[in-house]
Amino acid sequence: MKELTFKACDMHVHFRQGDMLTKVAPLTAQHFARALLMPNTTPPIRTAADARRYKREVMDACSQYKGFEPLMTFKILPDTTPEMVRDFLPSLGQIPIAVAGKVYPKGLTTNAQDGVEDYFELFPVFEVMQELGLILCLHGEKPGKYIEGLDRERAFLGTLKFIVATFPDLKIVMEHITTDAAVNTVLDMPSNVAATITVHHLLLTYDEVGVDKMRPHNYCKPVAKRAADRDALVEAAISGCPKFMFGSDSAPHPQHKKECSECCAGVFTAPIALPLLAEIFEQHNALDRLANFAGRFAWRFYEILEFLDKPAKQVTLVKEPMVVPEKYGDVVPFKSGETISWNVKN
Amino acid sequence: MKELTFKACDMHVHFRQGDMLTKVAPLTAQHFARALLMPNTTPPIRTAADARRYKREVMDACSQYKGFEPLMTFKILPDTTPEMVRDFLPSLGQIPIAVAGKVYPKGLTTNAQDGVEDYFELFPVFEVMQELGLILCLHGEKPGKYIEGLDRERAFLGTLKFIVATFPDLKIVMEHITTDAAVNTVLDMPSNVAATITVHHLLLTYDEVGVDKMRPHNYCKPVAKRAADRDALVEAAISGCPKFMFGSDSAPHPQHKKECSECCAGVFTAPIALPLLAEIFEQHNALDRLANFAGRFAWRFYEILEFLDKPAKQVTLVKEPMVVPEKYGDVVPFKSGETISWNVKN
Repeated sequence: MKELTFKACDMHVHFRQGDMLTKVAPLTAQHFARALLMPNTTPPIRTAADARRYKREVMDACSQYKGFEPLMTFKILPDTTPEMVRDFLPSLGQIPIAVAGKVYPKGLTTNAQDGVEDYFELFPVFEVMQELGLILCLHGEKPGKYIEGLDRERAFLGTLKFIVATFPDLKIVMEHITTDAAVNTVLDMPSNVAATITVHHLLLTYDEVGVDKMRPHNYCKPVAKRAADRDALVEAAISGCPKFMFGSDSAPHPQHKKECSECCAGVFTAPIALPLLAEIFEQHNALDRLANFAGRFAWRFYEILEFLDKPAKQVTLVKEPMVVPEKYGDVVPFKSGETISWNVKN
Repeated sequence: MKELTFKACDMHVHFRQGDMLTKVAPLTAQHFARALLMPNTTPPIRTAADARRYKREVMDACSQYKGFEPLMTFKILPDTTPEMVRDFLPSLGQIPIAVAGKVYPKGLTTNAQDGVEDYFELFPVFEVMQELGLILCLHGEKPGKYIEGLDRERAFLGTLKFIVATFPDLKIVMEHITTDAAVNTVLDMPSNVAATITVHHLLLTYDEVGVDKMRPHNYCKPVAKRAADRDALVEAAISGCPKFMFGSDSAPHPQHKKECSECCAGVFTAPIALPLLAEIFEQHNALDRLANFAGRFAWRFYEILEFLDKPAKQVTLVKEPMVVPEKYGDVVPFKSGETISWNVKN
């Protein structure tokens, strides 16, 4: 029986807060050694104190899973100051309280009403992040009312180029890319620029979100694009290029907030992401590259030193069918009720 | 106070059957003099006997509205025969039992699982329709699994060209067009080829359907496209070109079949279509052309002789605000709860 064992990292995941956190965090912790937690909680994670408190909550919720550790981020808002950023790394050489700051474009996804319209305003913050070696994570869609939704990611690439040119030593991750244009732009950039790719964007086109059928459980931001875009993402993920890392963007919402008018954006994949990735990579004869895409490339780019010191759990994927549960609590997962040809070995 | 009085025609509307018919048919009959009823009921309207029975049901439901008359259609299926078509016009020169036949592409909209994949198969039927002067209505999206949803209308234009070239005397209506490509193709064709345009496609882009927000009550087939497409549709509707007629494609579905996963396709506009059209036409300084777009062009193209003999009700639109009801029964209308600057005078 085919098996694959490695230390898995999910470099983009939403745990939310409160009861939802308690329910979903262990579903990530049981498979992954490290996960980068998004800071767009309610209220957001803005300060070092916020990040410390949030990390404790997550560690408490996941205490049964040794060898899992959350990597913290902070939300960069128009009023974030360089001083607030310095707090995340009290002394150089230490492990920072948060490893990355995340910028959300105003109004374009869940809890982004407080997001950014003018990236220039953030340059003093980016300057300090570059100095401290903190990573900048970008939701790569351009805000503003004169851009159509399906064009926002392509329109953002100019903004990305300008930030990259201005801060040559800043490590930047364009999150959950969805277009061939983004793949090519990131490929053309220097090695301090990388991207995450979700598992659902390796499978979906817009037809499965809102054209052929309207499927709110497949709806996320940025929305899946065309088949040519999806194919470019698969190509990037299996390429072995260390610029492309796995980030699930797994985002839980209760069923009634998905099956409604104006549903929340987010696809819940955390507990099935690794089996699905194994299925996709196997289909493309690239199973030997999965441990890089969904693990090693992340801890190299993020320089997750703790991997050397602290225990990091391994996951073993095994080729045997699993049926995706209809629900996890009141959250309907991606591929609900469908069968995947890989599973996680207990 | 601005007023506008004319005989309105809705050349594409769904009444469905049973209780839904009883509820929605009067909402059309109270405003429109004529309406072309789509035959994709359950079961479908396939034969002259079906059409006679369905017309009676509609007339019964609308008996309080004198001067309204439904125009019947039949559903053209792979097994429709020329003989079945001849039944719709028992003797030449008479008013036909159905004025048009409608082709649905397989699987692409509500009740289209029995639809067509191979248009060649239908050529014997088209031949008889051409001979009898019956009109061919086409849902203009190309079926088949290798075409992306957003491309289906453009892909269909080749099929349309071939049918038009093969049957030069067949009157053809491409229904509910959604792209600038369809506008231009219809414009380039001879005068026996026309198109209907809905009111929601004059207002929506897919951002308001499934990208910026996911709004199932705006979801229909074909889905709204880009801003440039919407603008081309507005241009066509207000142009004064008699090839472009109003057809609402109003399609009622109960709320629970819209606010769910894999919702039904269809936007319910019947009771607010004329006020909305007046608002749009006024915004574009084209109010004087509304009576043509939403009336005269239809009865000319369809040669609705009954207009001369039978009473045809007039509608008076008046510039005064109306608030769209949240619901009509359990059907949530387009623009639910919003205010329109025009109303229908009682």
